[in-house]
Amino acid sequence: MKKDHKDVSMAVIRRLPKYHRRLKELMEKDVTRISSKELSGMIGFTASQIRQDLNCFGGFGQQGYGYDVSELYTEISRILGLTEHYNTVIVGAGNLGQAIANYSNFEKKGFHVLALFEKNPRLIGLKIRDVPVLDIDELEEFAKNKSVDIGVICTNSENAQDVADQLVKLPVKAVWNFAPVDIILPENIVQENVHLSDSLFVISYLLKMQRDEQQNP
Amino acid sequence: MKKDHKDVSMAVIRRLPKYHRRLKELMEKDVTRISSKELSGMIGFTASQIRQDLNCFGGFGQQGYGYDVSELYTEISRILGLTEHYNTVIVGAGNLGQAIANYSNFEKKGFHVLALFEKNPRLIGLKIRDVPVLDIDELEEFAKNKSVDIGVICTNSENAQDVADQLVKLPVKAVWNFAPVDIILPENIVQENVHLSDSLFVISYLLKMQRDEQQNP
Repeated sequence: MKKDHKDVSMAVIRRLPKYHRRLKELMEKDVTRISSKELSGMIGFTASQIRQDLNCFGGFGQQGYGYDVSELYTEISRILGLTEHYNTVIVGAGNLGQAIANYSNFEKKGFHVLALFEKNPRLIGLKIRDVPVLDIDELEEFAKNKSVDIGVICTNSENAQDVADQLVKLPVKAVWNFAPVDIILPENIVQENVHLSDSLFVISYLLKMQRDEQQNP
Repeated sequence: MKKDHKDVSMAVIRRLPKYHRRLKELMEKDVTRISSKELSGMIGFTASQIRQDLNCFGGFGQQGYGYDVSELYTEISRILGLTEHYNTVIVGAGNLGQAIANYSNFEKKGFHVLALFEKNPRLIGLKIRDVPVLDIDELEEFAKNKSVDIGVICTNSENAQDVADQLVKLPVKAVWNFAPVDIILPENIVQENVHLSDSLFVISYLLKMQRDEQQNP
């Protein structure tokens, strides 16, 4: 019995990929069944948190028997939309754009990269795996009669908003932004930002704490 | 008056880079003063949350006057350890490693990339900006008599744990891991993981929700 999960909080949703990753690791180790307590030890959330999270999507485990690893993995894949197909374009074919186009694992999960777009003539014409790097001026024409689900922004900060506006016009349904600025999109478009510096600055915070402690123990 | 901030929660720490980013944007727009309410509108946290967060590090704002943007930016930079210097090595000089080495903004914030390390002979000998790509077998020798603060893992999943073990031996104080696996490190080493798929899978979740709603409105 599946619950309607329209009202699941973003905090729960953001934890789902972590469950997905851990369950995959368990499957690779041929573990077939796991309790919320064992999963808790692996994943760092409390057992009660895990039960609550999974209950948002209907009950999976059986009291006293734990979760069937492969079944739960399949269900979470389905909930995360990883059994669907998503057409993707990447704007910016520099190192980062190429790195993302090269992640064969994304392709396996249903994210199909149609093309990369670039304004640098030295990159236009390249192929990354089998995906062509096209002129950014061809984006609109290219997207005609195609349904593009996700636009990935791998440009620098200065161009990010312009690119976002172009993607919105195609239209795309979601923007995955790697440029280190916050872009503005219409509300109906899904936006995910990957700000690498946010993660790096947590490291520097913790290292500075260590230094301070060593100097003033 | 600064409070001792040893006990600040990771949730607060993870919000600090976002404040930092927004304050920089305000400075670029020549905004000199902002209330927690205005900041709340920009940043999406409640005004009360913002006041609480900033109070963890001593009071910055003045009741009724708001925050001095530039002063708060400087203070948050200092708290985040961005006034310090960090020696960094990147292992894996593929597209992702090169992309990170190319972020000149990280250099400006004190993260100095000493070298990239790679096992692919076609990449060894390259220079990314002025940073050399060296043979991974030279890592240990290279790090002798140097203090390496941060090791960045940009290899594939299969090699990530081996690389992590090598970095621990140097030793490094922190590991910034981009490989899509969870690596195991001694507890005294700071670990930050960037799992790009976690972010992508939130997009697919939200797109699938939209599709489901369109099919069953």
